[in-house]
Amino acid sequence: MTRLFNRPSDFASELIEGFVAAYSDKVRQVPGGVVRNTRSKQGEVAVVIGGGSGHYPAFSGLVGQGLAHGAAMGNLFASPSARQVYSVSRAADNGGGVILSFGNYAGDVLHFGMAKERLNSEGIRCEVLPVTDDISSAPIEERHKRRGIAGDLTVFKTAAAAAEAGYDFDATLAVARRANERTRSLGVAFSGCTLPGASQPLFEVAANKMALGMGIHGEPGIEDCDIPTADELAERLVATLLEELPEGVESPRGQRVTVLLNGLGSVKYEELFVVYRRVAQLLGDAGVEVIEPEVGELVTSFDMAGLSLTLFWLDEELERLWHAPAATPAFRKGEITLAEPLEATELEIPDLDVVTPASSESRRAAGCVLSALEAAERVVLANVEKLGRIDAIAGDGDHGIGMERGVTAAVEKARELEARDAGAGTLLTRAADAWADRAGGTSGALWGVALGALGTAIGDEHAPDAKRVSEGVRRALEGIIHFGKASPGDKTMVDALIPFHETLEREVEGGAELAQAWRKAAEAAHRAAEESAHLVPKIGRARPLAEKSVGTPDPGAISLALIVAAVGEVISKGTPVTA
Amino acid sequence: MTRLFNRPSDFASELIEGFVAAYSDKVRQVPGGVVRNTRSKQGEVAVVIGGGSGHYPAFSGLVGQGLAHGAAMGNLFASPSARQVYSVSRAADNGGGVILSFGNYAGDVLHFGMAKERLNSEGIRCEVLPVTDDISSAPIEERHKRRGIAGDLTVFKTAAAAAEAGYDFDATLAVARRANERTRSLGVAFSGCTLPGASQPLFEVAANKMALGMGIHGEPGIEDCDIPTADELAERLVATLLEELPEGVESPRGQRVTVLLNGLGSVKYEELFVVYRRVAQLLGDAGVEVIEPEVGELVTSFDMAGLSLTLFWLDEELERLWHAPAATPAFRKGEITLAEPLEATELEIPDLDVVTPASSESRRAAGCVLSALEAAERVVLANVEKLGRIDAIAGDGDHGIGMERGVTAAVEKARELEARDAGAGTLLTRAADAWADRAGGTSGALWGVALGALGTAIGDEHAPDAKRVSEGVRRALEGIIHFGKASPGDKTMVDALIPFHETLEREVEGGAELAQAWRKAAEAAHRAAEESAHLVPKIGRARPLAEKSVGTPDPGAISLALIVAAVGEVISKGTPVTA
Repeated sequence: MTRLFNRPSDFASELIEGFVAAYSDKVRQVPGGVVRNTRSKQGEVAVVIGGGSGHYPAFSGLVGQGLAHGAAMGNLFASPSARQVYSVSRAADNGGGVILSFGNYAGDVLHFGMAKERLNSEGIRCEVLPVTDDISSAPIEERHKRRGIAGDLTVFKTAAAAAEAGYDFDATLAVARRANERTRSLGVAFSGCTLPGASQPLFEVAANKMALGMGIHGEPGIEDCDIPTADELAERLVATLLEELPEGVESPRGQRVTVLLNGLGSVKYEELFVVYRRVAQLLGDAGVEVIEPEVGELVTSFDMAGLSLTLFWLDEELERLWHAPAATPAFRKGEITLAEPLEATELEIPDLDVVTPASSESRRAAGCVLSALEAAERVVLANVEKLGRIDAIAGDGDHGIGMERGVTAAVEKARELEARDAGAGTLLTRAADAWADRAGGTSGALWGVALGALGTAIGDEHAPDAKRVSEGVRRALEGIIHFGKASPGDKTMVDALIPFHETLEREVEGGAELAQAWRKAAEAAHRAAEESAHLVPKIGRARPLAEKSVGTPDPGAISLALIVAAVGEVISKGTPVTA
Repeated sequence: MTRLFNRPSDFASELIEGFVAAYSDKVRQVPGGVVRNTRSKQGEVAVVIGGGSGHYPAFSGLVGQGLAHGAAMGNLFASPSARQVYSVSRAADNGGGVILSFGNYAGDVLHFGMAKERLNSEGIRCEVLPVTDDISSAPIEERHKRRGIAGDLTVFKTAAAAAEAGYDFDATLAVARRANERTRSLGVAFSGCTLPGASQPLFEVAANKMALGMGIHGEPGIEDCDIPTADELAERLVATLLEELPEGVESPRGQRVTVLLNGLGSVKYEELFVVYRRVAQLLGDAGVEVIEPEVGELVTSFDMAGLSLTLFWLDEELERLWHAPAATPAFRKGEITLAEPLEATELEIPDLDVVTPASSESRRAAGCVLSALEAAERVVLANVEKLGRIDAIAGDGDHGIGMERGVTAAVEKARELEARDAGAGTLLTRAADAWADRAGGTSGALWGVALGALGTAIGDEHAPDAKRVSEGVRRALEGIIHFGKASPGDKTMVDALIPFHETLEREVEGGAELAQAWRKAAEAAHRAAEESAHLVPKIGRARPLAEKSVGTPDPGAISLALIVAAVGEVISKGTPVTA
């Protein structure tokens, strides 16, 4: 269990401070995480990694020469926000574009994906590469659904080595993809971890049992069994991993493979070596040549008891890149020539808080956007309990308080920006960021996506007319579908947003004023939200829970309907629309 | 707890195999432990470290360029035997002498000390340097009694860097001593570890309590208290360490210090960083400049929950040596030029099992020595239970089975050597090694010392006459007093051995034959052993236990008396003495 902390809510930020204090020769803190404190070549592709905190040395401990250029560091076991990823990427960018790599978890996929869009929109080339090495988390046919565990390291390491060797963006990305395709892991767990201040473990394994394939956040495994001997465990892991050779590898015999035997926290080094002894024998028996293995703690989960075995099937290029020297706080390898440290003032940290000048129309409109957000806040606050109750029927019941955190943060930020003469687009975009940052969870991130898209469409130049607003709503819907991966009928907020968007667009195209069009659209959203009670969720929890929710509307759809109705009243009273 | 093992008794040797399989580029297994697998300069002083297994990366993980030249690896939490230390030292020696460094624990002091004597006797320069950094384990006036914990690393590292920089033996030793004098640590514990196959933890800390100063094997701390916040813990550790500045340091202000914040196993990196954050602030406030700190797992104790803070007060030379590059399996630093790997056949491993030619008289005498050992075995086997019962009154009751293991191993080895035509001296010396290796514990080690001294005095050239035997017994007594640190009257085997020696010497000097002199000496030993019942032990356990033993003779003294009586009968029947 985690025993040493101050206020649990400060843990994640305090650990970054301590980490940076310890390794200031190698890393530097920037908003959202850390970047290298050493000079990289101009034009070098930047490999930016990240994820929730609690997995040290992943992710911050892997930042440094020969490995990642930066790491976005989320809260404990929680994805960093899109804004954090964006901020770290901007600081890490050397003018050669950014490859974002991370374990394939829903929150990370969402936030890194949003950051990518933002970087692209600013002309910075960026691609995402979620690592999918955990073979127990989905069958090979659904490889894209697999989680990323200790195999993160082989992907990060080879991609970064390629970047440092001067590979261009496409070639670096190709290395990262091939490394991911040729990396396979399988893990086991004996006990879960207890987070700072928590009274219960985050997850548990039955006493004297081993959970085969359990994930590093306690995701269910594929089998519970008695704890085997060290040799039996080695045999099980090696045999299973040798059953799934990467494409192009016909037989293990004659292959060169890097092996990672990774401890998750409290399965200690001595046990790992006893297991590794048998792993090495078995791979030798299978005709596999092991190249520069690592036995130790590479991706942990606090003091979770467990381990994973990773096989990284090398080819000539990947072996050269794996072999390349590296010097990070937690991973050092080979004969390195240390890079020059950056001067204290040298790193260009983007000022994410700058307010660019806006037209006077847009500044006036910003006041109306603020009023709309305040109306949204009032209606959310009046319904927090109700939203929680609806959500609790088939979910975890936190939808109400999540919405409260998000909308409150958005209003606070909007007030600040209105006072600073921001335009309507900037005000709404920043309010969206604040919402996503503070609300957490998927629904918070999606509200951030939606309001951000709307804000971008509105811009800081013109007053937002009906056409622009309608166009913004269309983009908001596209963003939510893209990042939220929900289809109509899946019982999500999309089921209310689609009729809202369609009605608004039809009315506006038919020549209606914004206030009237919006009111009709809001009514459509309301009806659709009520009707969502008949639907069965497709995404998310187990079958019995999904069925339990039939008869209750989707809380996300209800939130949306309530908010658009409240905003409609603001528009009717004093619309900022010019035409 | 330790979950992954095969047969618990194989754990220590299997972990070495796995470790060497993983890091064969850096280390090579030799009898007794590991040495570097890279070439060192001819004439370079060798730094050989070691201790019980279970503390990875101490000790094997610290072997490699820029750090230790070899590590003797004992069983779990048990000192390596003198023979192991000797063997590793012989393999690590580059012709420049050997510095043996290790944590200051009784078993290690004994065995490394014995290995030193043996190396010296073979003309290899050797000194021991026990590390004494744990300030909670004894007051400053008794610094030599303090235990060694994570501060081991600063001593090993700077000594080895000095050796690699070409310092001669005395200068390297001076660096090691100064590093030890300028290294101070303080640790805390929250829970103990459970060894492979054990059903109970080796030691425990009360729930929700913290033991300040508890040792890495569960040695009692100085205070139990509630678990503090991370900041409070940092404040307590820093304040206590700053109270005891090393000699020559008047004030912390302006000093340059290396900091190690060491996790013992399941206090994880994130917690360490949160604590380190405050440590760095406090040292900054005190005007201390922190140089190249390390936050991580440096000296562990399986999955024990705890940490220690070490301050290493640098001077210019120590800072340069700390800064020097290193590349071991678990500790890498700086810009290193990797040394050439050794060829497979290149390392000269001393054949500890070679039998040098002996005179025919000595070979005949070897048969009598074997008979004497067999007689000792018979009398021990007949008294195992009795010896255990006596020992159980104030001890742990294992004296009988320890003696059984030792004497059985000695007879086995003696039979093998007799069949290989060994001389009496070689036969007895090797039997002594086998006794110490197999018996374990202090009493086993001391029987190894005693028989080894006797065997060396007898030699392989002449038949052992009365004078030589008497001289050998004197050396055996000296060895036991030197390594066992017992004085007459402390209620140990010394209380029987002194009258045995004095009587034997007097009789032999008076012209008596060996058989007659030995019989009188054995009678004196028997009387003294019986009289040891009146004594109160000075060494060892707590007062109440010591008093409990009054009225019962010392089991070690009884063993000695039984054995010398049985050997006396063999000598009387057919003595190998020529004059």
